[in-house]
Amino acid sequence: MTAYTATVTVRLQHGVLDPEAETTQQALERLGFELDALRSADRFEIDLDADDEQAAAERADEMAHRLLANPTIHDYDVAVEARE
Amino acid sequence: MTAYTATVTVRLQHGVLDPEAETTQQALERLGFELDALRSADRFEIDLDADDEQAAAERADEMAHRLLANPTIHDYDVAVEARE
Repeated sequence: MTAYTATVTVRLQHGVLDPEAETTQQALERLGFELDALRSADRFEIDLDADDEQAAAERADEMAHRLLANPTIHDYDVAVEARE
Repeated sequence: MTAYTATVTVRLQHGVLDPEAETTQQALERLGFELDALRSADRFEIDLDADDEQAAAERADEMAHRLLANPTIHDYDVAVEARE
């Protein structure tokens, strides 16, 4: 077994309204910053042990599918790297 | 001016309690997943125009410093890449 960290990034699907991101963008603009767009996402860093990188990615993918993301409104991606 | 996307990742500092991450970890364990730890973070993807990559990174850093992160409890990092 090797120790891995899987990073799951959960984003709203394109077209789903994100009032929190809109408010954050407006607040930055009120502070004088210029920006074209702002998107927010949730990031989960999961430490787990697995036989290999592919097994770690599959388990993290299933965690995202079953709990971390809502398939109706979210997209997600998974990245895995070995952990010291 | 070039179009960039700056990604700001905001994490709780080590030692700051994160009950939401704890609850998420427990929920995954109740579903039968094995994991050693789970950390959550906020991720902001900011589209902006700047003269060069360094200018884009500096502006995103200032946005994080002034609004996106709370220096008392958060650490953050900034990554910039050119956007098509």
